[in-house]
Amino acid sequence: MKILALDTSTSKIVVYYRDSEKIITQTYMGKDKHGRNLGVVMNNLKNLNINFEDIDVVGIGIGPGSLTGLRVGISFALGLSIDKKIVAIPSTKLIAANLMNSGKNIVITRKARQGYIYGAIYDEYLNTIVEPFVESIENFSKELEKMENFSVIGDGAEYFGGNLPEIYHYPEPSRLGYLVEKEVELGNFVEKVEPLYIQKSIAEINFEKKNQRKDG
Amino acid sequence: MKILALDTSTSKIVVYYRDSEKIITQTYMGKDKHGRNLGVVMNNLKNLNINFEDIDVVGIGIGPGSLTGLRVGISFALGLSIDKKIVAIPSTKLIAANLMNSGKNIVITRKARQGYIYGAIYDEYLNTIVEPFVESIENFSKELEKMENFSVIGDGAEYFGGNLPEIYHYPEPSRLGYLVEKEVELGNFVEKVEPLYIQKSIAEINFEKKNQRKDG
Repeated sequence: MKILALDTSTSKIVVYYRDSEKIITQTYMGKDKHGRNLGVVMNNLKNLNINFEDIDVVGIGIGPGSLTGLRVGISFALGLSIDKKIVAIPSTKLIAANLMNSGKNIVITRKARQGYIYGAIYDEYLNTIVEPFVESIENFSKELEKMENFSVIGDGAEYFGGNLPEIYHYPEPSRLGYLVEKEVELGNFVEKVEPLYIQKSIAEINFEKKNQRKDG
Repeated sequence: MKILALDTSTSKIVVYYRDSEKIITQTYMGKDKHGRNLGVVMNNLKNLNINFEDIDVVGIGIGPGSLTGLRVGISFALGLSIDKKIVAIPSTKLIAANLMNSGKNIVITRKARQGYIYGAIYDEYLNTIVEPFVESIENFSKELEKMENFSVIGDGAEYFGGNLPEIYHYPEPSRLGYLVEKEVELGNFVEKVEPLYIQKSIAEINFEKKNQRKDG
């Protein structure tokens, strides 16, 4: 089975390729636009004799993150994915994978519009504790005060006293491959891919959960 | 400052490049010989307009590991490093960086000759607890029985009940960059680079330590 996966939800383009003989990863993080750089990175794969038509599964990081960046990556992935299986990975979970097996819950925070962050919370095995949300920095600071035994990563970690090295804040291709291959094993494929566009606050998510429990 | 770093101590070629505008990483893990693949990976960097003559610092993973693989990488790095500064990183520490900040000590084990492993032990902040050694699987299993609160990674982890995903067992380019940049900040440059060739057992290392204490 041949797998190609990419994530363009942050300023770092992340690409993973695997077939029965080799695993190749590439990342590019710079100031230029994603469109141009993604082309160069993909050309590099071609130089390594990767034929995109042979791919069986396309894995895509669906955000939340920069909509412009996400659209570049998702469009490219969709172009490749005709007649192929598709796996969608939340980019917050992908960042959380940088700290899995750390014995702590993992709080992901990404810069959103002025004064706000996107966030999500996972346990050390990447089970979802709070699904992706958008929240003001002020409100989320208060939420974190109630929590214990967690680490904060992502490019919004600076607002919440996160002090881990910068390498934790951005997706890693090997962890993208790990997550995509887990979904392939489970047969978790999707028909359609769209950027994960988050509008709910933590309060709204909690409110819905409560009502779901009542309904059930 | 422009930094190029590589590690070829395992079956995974790991390359990291950074300048003031961008960070690029590449990895290639396959069955072919390192010589050919390293050339292709380096050509990819040239396609991204990286000029090797402009590099200020060359970082090198010095093993322990496959001597053939190490020689390919170290020769290449030395070829680049004329008139440049050199940073040397033990490849066991590089693998340990995959699990830093996990709240546990990190035991690295790499397959060596039949029945033996290379190993090293670090705390979660990558301070050295036991420097690289070679030991029989049997003896090292007994050593581990005396230890608490640790994780085992590296391609020898299977001998010692290590059950973390495979992605922990091989070097990662972003963590190579992190370690090299820390040495650059500290001004820890070296004049000569040779593969780390390990002949000492744990018993010998402990014996020497004891004598050093007596001398001091």
